[in-house]
Amino acid sequence: MKKLINSPDAVIPDALRGVAAAHPSLHVDLENRVISRAQRTPGKVGVVSGGGSGHEPLHGGYVGFGMLDAAAPGEVYTSPVPDQILAATQAADAGAGVLHIVKNYTGDVLNFRMAAELAEDEDIQVVSVVTDDDVAVEDSTFTAGRRGVGGTIVAEKVAGAAAEDGADLETVARLATEVNERSRSFAIALHAGTVPAAGKPGFNLAENEVEIGVGIHGEPGRERGEFAPVKELVGYALDAIHADRPISGDVLVIMNGQGGTPLIELYGAFAEAVDWLDGHGATVARNLVGNYITSLDQAGFSITVTSLTDELVRYWDAPVSTPALRWGV
Amino acid sequence: MKKLINSPDAVIPDALRGVAAAHPSLHVDLENRVISRAQRTPGKVGVVSGGGSGHEPLHGGYVGFGMLDAAAPGEVYTSPVPDQILAATQAADAGAGVLHIVKNYTGDVLNFRMAAELAEDEDIQVVSVVTDDDVAVEDSTFTAGRRGVGGTIVAEKVAGAAAEDGADLETVARLATEVNERSRSFAIALHAGTVPAAGKPGFNLAENEVEIGVGIHGEPGRERGEFAPVKELVGYALDAIHADRPISGDVLVIMNGQGGTPLIELYGAFAEAVDWLDGHGATVARNLVGNYITSLDQAGFSITVTSLTDELVRYWDAPVSTPALRWGV
Repeated sequence: MKKLINSPDAVIPDALRGVAAAHPSLHVDLENRVISRAQRTPGKVGVVSGGGSGHEPLHGGYVGFGMLDAAAPGEVYTSPVPDQILAATQAADAGAGVLHIVKNYTGDVLNFRMAAELAEDEDIQVVSVVTDDDVAVEDSTFTAGRRGVGGTIVAEKVAGAAAEDGADLETVARLATEVNERSRSFAIALHAGTVPAAGKPGFNLAENEVEIGVGIHGEPGRERGEFAPVKELVGYALDAIHADRPISGDVLVIMNGQGGTPLIELYGAFAEAVDWLDGHGATVARNLVGNYITSLDQAGFSITVTSLTDELVRYWDAPVSTPALRWGV
Repeated sequence: MKKLINSPDAVIPDALRGVAAAHPSLHVDLENRVISRAQRTPGKVGVVSGGGSGHEPLHGGYVGFGMLDAAAPGEVYTSPVPDQILAATQAADAGAGVLHIVKNYTGDVLNFRMAAELAEDEDIQVVSVVTDDDVAVEDSTFTAGRRGVGGTIVAEKVAGAAAEDGADLETVARLATEVNERSRSFAIALHAGTVPAAGKPGFNLAENEVEIGVGIHGEPGRERGEFAPVKELVGYALDAIHADRPISGDVLVIMNGQGGTPLIELYGAFAEAVDWLDGHGATVARNLVGNYITSLDQAGFSITVTSLTDELVRYWDAPVSTPALRWGV
């Protein structure tokens, strides 16, 4: 295994040092492993997320004005621990309660729940919203129920914008829940990523195989399918999403790379998605094309479709200033 | 070879369709293969770049307010043709002349020169600045002299900001030249990228080898070196840069991924770069960490160091709104 690291156990602390040096508007607590905004706004609802590392820019790259207040990055593909999530919650608390946005993985859900209880003991009100937008499989390696994936980014953006706007905790949580209910995702991998501590790819695919419905940790999807032109792969993903929740009207599309796929390919995949959606009477009103929720150096794409409302568009378009998303400021 | 494409010859047109659909503020001329701003500002100097595709977001991702007016993407790793560059020049022309920013590769230099002559025939004044910031090798597979790499991004940003500010062609060209003179880059690859039409990686490295001084097309650098911790690899690159042009004072650092390297690793590499620079009395005043000039799915990093002046900082910080760089607006 060749990776740009010093050693597998130094990956997270080294990356956090880099984040601290690169982004003066963020505060990085190297001891507790928390990335938070350097300044907090009194009376604003705090928005916190976190999870295993290896999915960058998720979640640390979404900390900043108009989005998250703090993120708790675990070890690679490993949930952050309750004390760490508590520290993130404390960093985000500005007196109006804190929303936890939690991707639906068993470890994350348990540890965020324990952290919420610890926070309540300190009189910080916490509401949790669990995202589970991946339609590929019902239960999976790391979950009871569906996995939380790309829709989480939309939930973080919309909830963060509402919190910035002065909305109360109930409203911010309602919006995150609504985004999750209106979002669906599906992923296909061409090659597995390599976890530094494991030293070899997480799974092996033959030269003519793809993993259809793959998870963000390389966990299995629906089936090993045959490699096909991108038009067919994108069509498969959108068919799966459409079968679960019919797509119509104005949608937000995230054409996301898993970390090892060139941007030029993602634009080609996005073109196919737009054609498919046009053909099904939907309009791509907003989009992201690039690496937004990754799986280390895994090759492949995921597509997230969020059915928009005027309110969601307004919060999506609201100013945001984070390492990975920035507009309007 | 598994890639998210329909066929090797459809990669560029498919990607351009995706760019057109994703970015309404850009105009994509599918016939001439030119990405330009949808609107032009009368009397503003035009800034144009281009080159082979496969380096995204370079250059199309830098078209927009405060940076490029138009980009001409060639086939993968292949120079755009003169007529295409002429079309980009025409799209950028607003009556005050056009700057060509050209990475120093033989094909690019020749074709941009021919395009400049064609543009002059149409009474469009063109000045060309050739970038050659890569210190790895003097002459190489595709160049006489040094290769133009990451410093080109800085030249495009600074020249674009000056043009937006109303500077004349001579001033805009002078700034791009100054950026190039003050910028140095060096790259190390862990794994080769795969050109779709070739169908296999551009070179082969053993499990303990890295390509030291690799080019953005996977072309050879100084030597095959031994794989080492990121601290050593980053130190090697900065030593090479420092030996060529001593680093001191305030610098801009781009810790760039070659397309197949996880962001978490780039942040770790950036932390090492900051330590090295601190130890040599330099201050990282500005930075980018991420994929800014790639080589398809090649794994590795490049580092660009630009020695800053107050004027360069002002133009770097000026508002920019492109797919890949956006701040201040």
